[in-house]
Amino acid sequence: MEEEDMINFTFRNPTKIIFGKDTEYLVGKETKAYSSRILLHYGGGSIKRNGLYDRVRKSLDEAGIEVHELSGVLPNPRLTLVQEGIRICREKGINFILAVGGGSVIDSAKAIAVGVPYKGNVWDFYSGKAVPGEALPVGVVLTIPAAGSESSNSSVITNEDGWYKRGLTDDSIYPAFAIMNPEVTFTLPDYQTACGASDIMAHIMERYFTNTRDVELIDRLCEATLKTMILNVPRALKNPTDYAARAEIMWAGTVAHNNLLSTGRIGDWASHGIEHELSAIYDIAHGAGLSIVFPAWMKYVYKHDISRFAQYAHRVWNVDYNVFNPEETALKGIEALEAFYTSIGLPIRLSQANIDEEHLEEMADKCTGSGSYTVGNFVKLTRDDVLNIYKLAL
Amino acid sequence: MEEEDMINFTFRNPTKIIFGKDTEYLVGKETKAYSSRILLHYGGGSIKRNGLYDRVRKSLDEAGIEVHELSGVLPNPRLTLVQEGIRICREKGINFILAVGGGSVIDSAKAIAVGVPYKGNVWDFYSGKAVPGEALPVGVVLTIPAAGSESSNSSVITNEDGWYKRGLTDDSIYPAFAIMNPEVTFTLPDYQTACGASDIMAHIMERYFTNTRDVELIDRLCEATLKTMILNVPRALKNPTDYAARAEIMWAGTVAHNNLLSTGRIGDWASHGIEHELSAIYDIAHGAGLSIVFPAWMKYVYKHDISRFAQYAHRVWNVDYNVFNPEETALKGIEALEAFYTSIGLPIRLSQANIDEEHLEEMADKCTGSGSYTVGNFVKLTRDDVLNIYKLAL
Repeated sequence: MEEEDMINFTFRNPTKIIFGKDTEYLVGKETKAYSSRILLHYGGGSIKRNGLYDRVRKSLDEAGIEVHELSGVLPNPRLTLVQEGIRICREKGINFILAVGGGSVIDSAKAIAVGVPYKGNVWDFYSGKAVPGEALPVGVVLTIPAAGSESSNSSVITNEDGWYKRGLTDDSIYPAFAIMNPEVTFTLPDYQTACGASDIMAHIMERYFTNTRDVELIDRLCEATLKTMILNVPRALKNPTDYAARAEIMWAGTVAHNNLLSTGRIGDWASHGIEHELSAIYDIAHGAGLSIVFPAWMKYVYKHDISRFAQYAHRVWNVDYNVFNPEETALKGIEALEAFYTSIGLPIRLSQANIDEEHLEEMADKCTGSGSYTVGNFVKLTRDDVLNIYKLAL
Repeated sequence: MEEEDMINFTFRNPTKIIFGKDTEYLVGKETKAYSSRILLHYGGGSIKRNGLYDRVRKSLDEAGIEVHELSGVLPNPRLTLVQEGIRICREKGINFILAVGGGSVIDSAKAIAVGVPYKGNVWDFYSGKAVPGEALPVGVVLTIPAAGSESSNSSVITNEDGWYKRGLTDDSIYPAFAIMNPEVTFTLPDYQTACGASDIMAHIMERYFTNTRDVELIDRLCEATLKTMILNVPRALKNPTDYAARAEIMWAGTVAHNNLLSTGRIGDWASHGIEHELSAIYDIAHGAGLSIVFPAWMKYVYKHDISRFAQYAHRVWNVDYNVFNPEETALKGIEALEAFYTSIGLPIRLSQANIDEEHLEEMADKCTGSGSYTVGNFVKLTRDDVLNIYKLAL
């Protein structure tokens, strides 16, 4: 077996996607197949303002489902709310969680779902002390294309006791179904649309930059999904009610993170780790942090595989391939990514987010366990590498 | 709602893909999760000659599984063998079918799987008299990348009583798992590799040529998968033990037909119908029939949407886009497809398969119920249209 070969993989994504106009009216029927007594989990007022809450409740009521509610999910969803959800489910004999919202609401619902049948503290799964054996089924009505949690097997929760933000990846938490109506995203603020797009593109690029050779099909599927984003995000920003553009973005957001694009290869994921420390200290959206970190990461590592970066520039950004100077081609791809982020209103430098040098050393420490481990797979970055990337992003 | 919008869709593909080197040794463990008494279903000698049969049996034996065998599946799998399989399963109390082979073996296994729990004649499902409520689980060890049946919800069976060839599409027949080791395909004869490639490419092109507007993500995923095939099939023919090329083809063959590429759009499928009559009368491989029919179909219908054909030529075949003459661009794409088929040893004219005008009228009749219905969605073809396409292919 040669090292370059595509890596053996297992792929199974069981989430049923129900996509299109008015699909939220199907939530009662889909839910009823699992349960007649559910926890309806959501964030705050936006789904009440735009009418989605009423439509979902109507559909659930018509299906004769007993609904218990737990709202108040915040960005970076909290452990205490998860524990409250677990308590309610046990008390009321609830065996299904319906998440109506974006990634935070879905991640919180998944945490409740693994916590209910577990005798210990659900945080055990996030701290790596235990592995889930089972989970309640989770249904989703998606409102923000971004995190890809609607058909992923992962969940990220923040423990307020020490402000640890930790992730769980387990096949038991793939949602049972995800209802996706692009019309629901018409009312997203521009900045949130752009941040979601940045998150989606980052999910693809984290997978794209790999040392695995001979993974051509997935390279090309990644490029196809990125190009779709690059064309449709500006359309959606120009005309927020452009159904076609919203639909392309929403479906691309799922394809980006449902693990098809991970098959046969090892992704990088350093930029997510580096961004993570940024949004842990500063009040910056994940997508905006990624639009700052990703170009800096690229500038720092592109020499590791100029061919791959030149391919990215040429195929994704239509940069002319300069066969006499592939490095020039590669660099133009990074410039094109920066120009795109700027065009959709995202920052590409820490200074644009009013972040200065003050905490860079601290973040580099946290990101690498004070230098005790590296981050990323494409290039294994040390603490000093991470610091240099933060500095490049200033 | 505008007609052009992406169409609402439901997508769920539950098949677990286990992909890579030596994965056939996992078949015992995967099967054991479902049953300890199975029907092992396969074709003829090829899996015995190349050692796959022995490896599969060893893995099943080690897992302590009681194996009953039914071999002898032919291309265009027959109803009588299906009925024999149903009888064996009932008699022995078997509740799991393991298919080791290509599309014919898998389709036959699916037919047995829906037939066992059904009181009537399994043909009822294929003739449209009944709809399956349930099916036994089916596992697959794939040997030929072509039909995509390893993760599809369809099965085609031939009833020898009248030689009717009919298809069933039902979500109950998605295989439970599919084990895919590209090394197993090293020993495929060149012609079979090429015919499989033609089948895979046809599955993508049938979906690509649509009247649904604003389906950009899936357009691009189709183009990416086609380009992967175009690059890797010649590599595999040049060096049959090129693992990377074989792996790209095998994974592309699944992606082509697992219904992801159908989401949000209506495919055409006329060429499959037109080819079907060809291989029903003449002894010609499905893939070779498709390489004859598809270019003729394209020449006949391209004016219906020159833009789409020009996009296909430009993006899939790297034809320079002539903005002053998109029709020229479109036609060059069709020429490129013909040149590709020729380069991999496939016929592109009926004459190359020694087929003359004799049965053209008869096939056009059969294909359209003597003109009582049309075939295809991109352009709805009448009996005379189909006849003209056969003539174009002479």
